[in-house]
Amino acid sequence: MAESTALTPDFDSHPIEHALVATEVAPAWIEVVWSDGRTSRFHHLWLRDNCPCERCVHQGTKEQMFELVTVSEDLHATAAEIDATGSLSVSWSTDSPDIAPHLSTFHAGWLRRHAYDDETRRDRHRTLQTWDGQSLREPPTFDGRAIMADDDALYDWLVALDTFGVSRVQHVPCEVDAIADLVGRIGIVRETNFGLLWDVKSEPNPISNANTSLPLPPHVDLPTREYQPGLQFLHCILNETSGGENILVDGFRIAELIREQHPADYEVLTTVPFEWANRSRTSDYRWSSPLIVTETDGSLREMRVGNWLRAPLDVSFDMVEACYRAYRRLFELTYRTDLQLRFRLEPGEVMAFDNRRALHARGEFTDMSGRRFLRGCYSERDELRSRMRMIERARRERQVATTIASSPRG
Amino acid sequence: MAESTALTPDFDSHPIEHALVATEVAPAWIEVVWSDGRTSRFHHLWLRDNCPCERCVHQGTKEQMFELVTVSEDLHATAAEIDATGSLSVSWSTDSPDIAPHLSTFHAGWLRRHAYDDETRRDRHRTLQTWDGQSLREPPTFDGRAIMADDDALYDWLVALDTFGVSRVQHVPCEVDAIADLVGRIGIVRETNFGLLWDVKSEPNPISNANTSLPLPPHVDLPTREYQPGLQFLHCILNETSGGENILVDGFRIAELIREQHPADYEVLTTVPFEWANRSRTSDYRWSSPLIVTETDGSLREMRVGNWLRAPLDVSFDMVEACYRAYRRLFELTYRTDLQLRFRLEPGEVMAFDNRRALHARGEFTDMSGRRFLRGCYSERDELRSRMRMIERARRERQVATTIASSPRG
Repeated sequence: MAESTALTPDFDSHPIEHALVATEVAPAWIEVVWSDGRTSRFHHLWLRDNCPCERCVHQGTKEQMFELVTVSEDLHATAAEIDATGSLSVSWSTDSPDIAPHLSTFHAGWLRRHAYDDETRRDRHRTLQTWDGQSLREPPTFDGRAIMADDDALYDWLVALDTFGVSRVQHVPCEVDAIADLVGRIGIVRETNFGLLWDVKSEPNPISNANTSLPLPPHVDLPTREYQPGLQFLHCILNETSGGENILVDGFRIAELIREQHPADYEVLTTVPFEWANRSRTSDYRWSSPLIVTETDGSLREMRVGNWLRAPLDVSFDMVEACYRAYRRLFELTYRTDLQLRFRLEPGEVMAFDNRRALHARGEFTDMSGRRFLRGCYSERDELRSRMRMIERARRERQVATTIASSPRG
Repeated sequence: MAESTALTPDFDSHPIEHALVATEVAPAWIEVVWSDGRTSRFHHLWLRDNCPCERCVHQGTKEQMFELVTVSEDLHATAAEIDATGSLSVSWSTDSPDIAPHLSTFHAGWLRRHAYDDETRRDRHRTLQTWDGQSLREPPTFDGRAIMADDDALYDWLVALDTFGVSRVQHVPCEVDAIADLVGRIGIVRETNFGLLWDVKSEPNPISNANTSLPLPPHVDLPTREYQPGLQFLHCILNETSGGENILVDGFRIAELIREQHPADYEVLTTVPFEWANRSRTSDYRWSSPLIVTETDGSLREMRVGNWLRAPLDVSFDMVEACYRAYRRLFELTYRTDLQLRFRLEPGEVMAFDNRRALHARGEFTDMSGRRFLRGCYSERDELRSRMRMIERARRERQVATTIASSPRG
């Protein structure tokens, strides 16, 4: 099938896998039928809002200039047809402040991809896959040399990291800035008051328990910030100590277990803000937030967990016991060995994880002044997903180019 | 009154303004009476959790080593007394895994500050003060030279910015990096794919509508990111065009108005995720979130608003009309002139605002190729609040030093 030349309101490519075969205007929506038999309905306002024409969308930035608030609420489509290029063409009523009657043309590939009938929405839906120490016996592991050289290898790593919230990358050069090169393949490094890149090693005058040889209970980094970093990368450069084992737990699995088995505790953990505070001579970051944060539909957004980074609980007197009960429940689960993934990070290896989903912990190690040296940095989930989408976009672009080249009209 | 030498679990100073005068152990809590007659109760577990001793808190990092999950749930205090230095001393039952019975000593100033009786919690509570174009006729305005030189001037600016979400700083040198120096007084600059510092000027090949001479409807920056920057700074270096007026609206006032007058719309705006997407050839940031985001107690956290940065609405068919109705309601309010603060930023002036509370807009301007030049950057709310707390901490430190110097035992 040839590709449509209709404008789209983005820089993406939209291969047409299902053609438009019929359309009909109803009072509040337009119905279309696709070549696979699926039916989608689009509200008049939705279509008007998404008009990709050059009066509505700046063609240099692809950002919208049209403002919905400028048309009357009873704006409606007067006609719809499938045009010669297979696009949906819609004419608009003129009772809007538009000077002339407006016409919108929707690319069939774009339209199918953004359809919001139940079936198409189900196709887009991603199910959360949580894990424990049985279902995931070691972190999904990738080759850093391939990731640096090849977008397909990069993509595979990012999919695993996005899906499971944990991963390991091997063959990363044991150099102090190598982690920045690896993360540079994804996007921006998130700077904090610890700097862009930071060290994890036992120090004589530590400013954080991370820089002692103490064990660290399961935690996320920077729960004391409004924005806990979404991604964390720890690069092992040297490890000649005994101990210091790495432990990862799927915080979302723990949340699921509490939701199923202890709903009253889950209610406390998702609604009552705990207090978080860093301890520093030079800064005083604090934030209040529940330990389990959900989206408005109840799905899991993030964990906020770090035993030694809590400020004193500040809830009403009557809530204190329930809070401590729920808190204990959560921590008991983080210590359950069947939920834990345990491994030892070796020099040249990076553990990369979703800092707000995967709780990480460290076993105590024999302090041999600097013989265990990790280098770390942070980034964000949206950097990862943007990079994944850009690789997918390039693939779609090739797919469209191939379709056009092989088309009789190509 | 002399200051206690009892340890505290932080690096802060805690002036004792109210002495402990009596204490009594109840089965689940310890009650104390203060010199001003106030009574506070502290649960046994809360006190044990906050023990500041050197076995429980690493004295170098002030981070907790004690883990609540290691003591039995029925741990209880066996005795409490006010010691010779005015601190609360508590003995613990020995059925815990602790080898020897544990003793905790709580500094009276620290304890009062963290008490959670209703009255003390009310004292800590901050009420949100929203504004409109009548109550705030111009942004709270400060002198950049004083801010650079003096922490008290810095503090006054930060209080205004934190309270109202908007401010203006004058006398900032018209140099391209001056904004970084100003923000450096607060904390870390938040880098994005636009760089650390970025320009707002009309460009021949813009990548964003911000870099055209188009008017920009009220919006927050980067609603396409999971983490919208908390603070935005715009430094006017050159402005020889006509138009380009700056407009600010208190998004929280708009949210309050909708909550009061249109509860059904408020329900939609706080619970239904809208889709956000940047338009770029080189990145593809997207996020889903309601336009008004609330905390679990219903208080306002942030707005996510930017007409031209939305992706197509992706909700179930039956919700579409309600979403567009609520969306229109919100945008109509952003255009109500009595809610807007309007002013023209002059060279040498910075507008600093809470990017997730104050919606900002720009009037169209006469494009004179580069004769309007703004330089901007982002930071976070937690950077601002950390800096405020550090200035407050220094003040308390001076207060304690003065008390000790003037004490008979000093």
